[in-house]
Amino acid sequence: MKTPVILKTIEELKEWRRGINAPLGFVPTMGALHAGHLSLLKASMAQNPHTLLSIFVNPTQFGANEDFGKYPRTLQADIALAQGVDAIFAPESKEMYKSDDEITLNPPKLMGYVYEGAIRKGHFDGVLQVVLKLFNLTSPTRAYFGQKDAQQLLLVQKMVKDFFLPLEIVPCPIIRDDDGLALSSRNIYLSKEERQIALKIPQTLQKIARLINEGEREVGKLYEFGMRELEGMNVDYLAFCNHTLEPLEQIIPTQTLILLTCKVGNTRLLDNLWI
Amino acid sequence: MKTPVILKTIEELKEWRRGINAPLGFVPTMGALHAGHLSLLKASMAQNPHTLLSIFVNPTQFGANEDFGKYPRTLQADIALAQGVDAIFAPESKEMYKSDDEITLNPPKLMGYVYEGAIRKGHFDGVLQVVLKLFNLTSPTRAYFGQKDAQQLLLVQKMVKDFFLPLEIVPCPIIRDDDGLALSSRNIYLSKEERQIALKIPQTLQKIARLINEGEREVGKLYEFGMRELEGMNVDYLAFCNHTLEPLEQIIPTQTLILLTCKVGNTRLLDNLWI
Repeated sequence: MKTPVILKTIEELKEWRRGINAPLGFVPTMGALHAGHLSLLKASMAQNPHTLLSIFVNPTQFGANEDFGKYPRTLQADIALAQGVDAIFAPESKEMYKSDDEITLNPPKLMGYVYEGAIRKGHFDGVLQVVLKLFNLTSPTRAYFGQKDAQQLLLVQKMVKDFFLPLEIVPCPIIRDDDGLALSSRNIYLSKEERQIALKIPQTLQKIARLINEGEREVGKLYEFGMRELEGMNVDYLAFCNHTLEPLEQIIPTQTLILLTCKVGNTRLLDNLWI
Repeated sequence: MKTPVILKTIEELKEWRRGINAPLGFVPTMGALHAGHLSLLKASMAQNPHTLLSIFVNPTQFGANEDFGKYPRTLQADIALAQGVDAIFAPESKEMYKSDDEITLNPPKLMGYVYEGAIRKGHFDGVLQVVLKLFNLTSPTRAYFGQKDAQQLLLVQKMVKDFFLPLEIVPCPIIRDDDGLALSSRNIYLSKEERQIALKIPQTLQKIARLINEGEREVGKLYEFGMRELEGMNVDYLAFCNHTLEPLEQIIPTQTLILLTCKVGNTRLLDNLWI
């Protein structure tokens, strides 16, 4: 297993990139790697002769009252977990943001200001900004994103389309713990009791999936069923929409996304199903 | 002299681009080519084995009350003038804007909302959007912009920096008619009388330059002098600023930009001096 080269500066990254002449897979992360991230790395390593991982807790995608300060930073453990990748780009903020008055991006009106975009004001502006920077710096052939952050994935795909970015976005399925909870770097915030409560989230999605498999197509009925299951939970939203995030009245197989986000204690947990 | 290949679609452009393996110079324009544009093409052809010209009257950079409809479109004449370039990309709007809800860009707060940005609301949002699309589609080694649109040039350079775009922006000097008027595709809107009046613009800049050459450094005095010269003209702004468009109180040679914009009849005319 090769040990990754650690690149801290843009100059180091550029020099490393110049030496790569075969397809490059790119996995952008905020670190605190878990098996979900590792599945992205594995997908990239299977499809590309070279794989680059980035680890950067991007300040511009956190709101003023969010957890930027306490977001887990575990670089040494991350490096140990990322064996097999060619290189890790782990810059400081001042390397990525050289000016305090930068050009920014606005997500599309329809897809950008619903769900996470409605709750986390400015979040996707920051996500798109840093992803565009990273894409330009790394010139990947393919970039890997988890389906867990469904809206983020759809917005990044939209950015690639709108701006004709010369790369392919590869969506990767959600990875779950044995108890069914979708993996997230923020799961470490959960107490033991909160974690038990959180299991209602994947369980409810699974029950909804079963009803759909049995033939139910009425979103109204599925929504009511889901909300009954979630009684007592602090639900941010349970939504049935298509891949441009427009609400559906009827389930359309292969084109439906079910989003469920709850607050458990102080932690917001996202989960979803692609039907 | 080679005759340029005409590329109408993105597919055609991509296929053509795949065949280019040496440095590519790119000159993005809205057509209605004049000697100013030709100087950009010449600079590109001198510095790169391949040159691509784009001709696209970009709807998103025109305000609702501006001249998008009547902006001169002279494709056949432009093709004839562009002899020597390898290819011309001349897409339809629907090729460049495939969605009616796209991700958009905000210029930086300091540089984007003064001067042209204050008068033409949303103009630079559209400029940056189309330039970013064109850069991604064409992957140039160098792109050529005229100093006449000074604020546009500075904002494109800022975008390249902020987003780490892998190309070089080459600024090219203003080209003037024999009477001193800076070339612009909009000069055709001027009547004979208006054109005579318009000459006050370069003449005033020249007189200011002479005072600076003679040692004057006080912006207050130069401004007053300039405004006296321009008496009777409909001046949008006469500004003395640095290359991030911050107003100066003292002229700093090599770091000063003098912007002068007047409305003559219904036509806004821009001119400037880089000191």
